[in-house]
Amino acid sequence: MNSIHHIVIIGAGNVATHLADAFQQSGKKIDQIYSRSAVSAKNLATKLDCSYTTNINELNVNSELYLVAVKDEVLPEILKKIKLKKKLIVHTSGLHPMHLLKKCSENYGIFYPLQTLTIKRKINTNAIPICIEANSKTNQELLSDLAHLFTENVRIVDSEKRKILHLAAVFACNYTNHLYSIAEDILKNAEIPFNLLHPLIKETAEKAIETGPFEAQTGPARRNDLKVIQSHKKLLTNKEQKNIYSLLSKSIIKKYFQKDNENEKL
Amino acid sequence: MNSIHHIVIIGAGNVATHLADAFQQSGKKIDQIYSRSAVSAKNLATKLDCSYTTNINELNVNSELYLVAVKDEVLPEILKKIKLKKKLIVHTSGLHPMHLLKKCSENYGIFYPLQTLTIKRKINTNAIPICIEANSKTNQELLSDLAHLFTENVRIVDSEKRKILHLAAVFACNYTNHLYSIAEDILKNAEIPFNLLHPLIKETAEKAIETGPFEAQTGPARRNDLKVIQSHKKLLTNKEQKNIYSLLSKSIIKKYFQKDNENEKL
Repeated sequence: MNSIHHIVIIGAGNVATHLADAFQQSGKKIDQIYSRSAVSAKNLATKLDCSYTTNINELNVNSELYLVAVKDEVLPEILKKIKLKKKLIVHTSGLHPMHLLKKCSENYGIFYPLQTLTIKRKINTNAIPICIEANSKTNQELLSDLAHLFTENVRIVDSEKRKILHLAAVFACNYTNHLYSIAEDILKNAEIPFNLLHPLIKETAEKAIETGPFEAQTGPARRNDLKVIQSHKKLLTNKEQKNIYSLLSKSIIKKYFQKDNENEKL
Repeated sequence: MNSIHHIVIIGAGNVATHLADAFQQSGKKIDQIYSRSAVSAKNLATKLDCSYTTNINELNVNSELYLVAVKDEVLPEILKKIKLKKKLIVHTSGLHPMHLLKKCSENYGIFYPLQTLTIKRKINTNAIPICIEANSKTNQELLSDLAHLFTENVRIVDSEKRKILHLAAVFACNYTNHLYSIAEDILKNAEIPFNLLHPLIKETAEKAIETGPFEAQTGPARRNDLKVIQSHKKLLTNKEQKNIYSLLSKSIIKKYFQKDNENEKL
């Protein structure tokens, strides 16, 4: 069976940049970058030493894999404009189903990195789990082999499960980070440096990974300590922060004590 | 100046156990454990090879430090029963002010570990930041020296700032862990193993620590991608999870786009 060597990257954002990097580090050749933004396309193409285009009709026709890593909201529109006949095309979205790619080519699949990626931040490629799906066993193996070049963490995940995984990741990553951000805002107001919380943030993540989050839970709500919860709510002058505090404390108490009726006063 | 050698621990829960361990590992002598629960007192005393009591009036009178590590809700009641004249007494609460200790002794302070501690989970003592406060420079130095025996991370923090720090820690640790827990529940329902999220959880924490959470934010709400947000809300059948999803997505959009009026449809 052939393996993939020449790759076109459609997109030049966070995911496109990290995957293009990982492919190139694995010895693959990035042939071309497409982006609507000439600046982004040029930046990434310069970094990878390849050509770029801002015209979706000018994609290189001789490559072996076309990886579409664009924002979820523009993905369906872009896919409508891509016709590749038999060339293998994949998208990297956690949300969109595989069948969106049907009209692009006879060979298609998913290459979903389950990780928070930001252009500026370097990350060990082995810390990027890849979820694979494909329209055939052959394509699944091609994609799986490609992912295995830079990470040990490769999973076969169908579109339905991938959607759930993406949703769970929003809680475990995006919303978690937002809570860090709220903590930072609260400390800033009191002129307390955020780095006091670094060891706590690190240990909270490690503990949840090692013991599971259900066992790892601590804090006033876990103890059903309504006095502390009330004191904290009094301290919060920001209405939004107060609402988030209330909702999450109620949710923890419900989970561990299941006394729905007694939560009214929170 | 004298240093502290003989210590009585009042409490036998998560914080009491971890601090008693840290003191003992640093060469200090735990003289006695007090707990309302004979089982807990005995367990910890056996582990530390010391005596124990369930009678607060039978505290060892010859020790040098009395560390009160009990639940926030029972702390004020317990402190009312402790009279030590000049012996140094500290509590470990993030919430309660130092002046609660005034009636216990002439010498008092705070020894607040800013960490999530669970009896069963071992933790490197150097990962336990200690926030110190004391009624005198001498006591502050005694406590600071004691903390420095097992951690490099010792801070002087007054009662007002400690309260804010404790509140911020609830967001950064307890509520963060609860979001991991919600993610786990969502995956369980779809029979997807939680360990798929481990690399993401680890990287989310590391990224927030290294780049700061404001810069680190990613995800649908960060991109103001209302379509994805709507799809996720449709996937969530649990009303509580849906409410948490809504509130946090709104809060992120507000933070990065500040378009309050446009959030109605979320």
